Amino acid sequence: MRLYDYPAPSPRRLRIFLAEKGLDIPRVAVDLAKGEQLGPEFRARNPRCTVPMLELDDGTCLSDCLAICEYLEALHPEPPLLGATPLERAQIVMWYQRIDADGFNAVAEVMRNASPAFKDRALPGPEPTPQIPALVERGRQRAQVFYRDMNARLMESEYVAGPTYTLADIHLLSVVDFGAGWGRMPVPAELTALLAWHQRVSARPSAKA
Amino acid sequence: MRLYDYPAPSPRRLRIFLAEKGLDIPRVAVDLAKGEQLGPEFRARNPRCTVPMLELDDGTCLSDCLAICEYLEALHPEPPLLGATPLERAQIVMWYQRIDADGFNAVAEVMRNASPAFKDRALPGPEPTPQIPALVERGRQRAQVFYRDMNARLMESEYVAGPTYTLADIHLLSVVDFGAGWGRMPVPAELTALLAWHQRVSARPSAKA
Repeated sequence: MRLYDYPAPSPRRLRIFLAEKGLDIPRVAVDLAKGEQLGPEFRARNPRCTVPMLELDDGTCLSDCLAICEYLEALHPEPPLLGATPLERAQIVMWYQRIDADGFNAVAEVMRNASPAFKDRALPGPEPTPQIPALVERGRQRAQVFYRDMNARLMESEYVAGPTYTLADIHLLSVVDFGAGWGRMPVPAELTALLAWHQRVSARPSAKA
Repeated sequence: MRLYDYPAPSPRRLRIFLAEKGLDIPRVAVDLAKGEQLGPEFRARNPRCTVPMLELDDGTCLSDCLAICEYLEALHPEPPLLGATPLERAQIVMWYQRIDADGFNAVAEVMRNASPAFKDRALPGPEPTPQIPALVERGRQRAQVFYRDMNARLMESEYVAGPTYTLADIHLLSVVDFGAGWGRMPVPAELTALLAWHQRVSARPSAKA
């Protein structure tokens, strides 16, 4: 098994997941800054040209973060990061998807439509996609709404999906750090529940992954 | 258990899923055309204001289609629509996510940014989001690329995720019909593998759901 990796927000989710599981999977660096994900070698494995990507020993490639985590959770159930019951799992997946749609996509929208480094790459994948300047402002507004909503959730729940740390927290941590870093949108000081949660999950050794 | 439903592409996925499972869950109609999903009653159950939504007997609400399907699959494993092994499941989730990001979002982008009915509702949820005309053209191009990629996949595989019909096929069927209908982007005639697959899955009784 090999994990195709790069120091960027999306593959970081998987690195944190592996650290929480205590799993060590050999890694192959794909230099996204140099566009290696668009080259023929990687593209043959993953036509969507996205990282992270897990390659199994028989050559099968899994290229979606949730799919990879579900697979690894089945192989290595302890500690559970996707819940102990069907309902817990469904709630974690629900939050994961919401964080993806409302949070990750908002920050990515800002970065990919603003940065000259993403000229004609406003969406992931091999197809050239021109930047749309109006999406930068829209993404900034969406990110603020997302922070506010996550703060409200963390006022009522210790972790995103309930009383324990799960894949939903891993995803939110990667989005918040993505927003504060590449997106230059730190969480506003008044969102104290979200900030306290961020401090808590950032103190876990896995956050360094 | 109650399913909040409306005759639109997103909840259709769940209706097909239930039909394939032979499950009959009481339904509550939420009139999206009248904006009932934004009203206080529904919003208290699902702050994201999206349909489909599954309400359990204890009041717990699940509001993401994949999360709901994973939950129902655990409760009613036969016939399997999310695979028989961890790898099959991961591949189905991977395709589901890809169809969501590249297909469903592309068609929704066209519809929500073009139709006067979606003025200030260019994204789902309660926050007003202005339409961006440039996204209409971008969505159209993305949909064509998506059709082409799915055609390539269906040249090598009988169903989306492998040799059997799964949730990935249900999602793609809803997207293709969404694109041809509301999006006015039928699959081009030269994409014969995608069209043959569409005929095959549309002939299943569940497609009428």
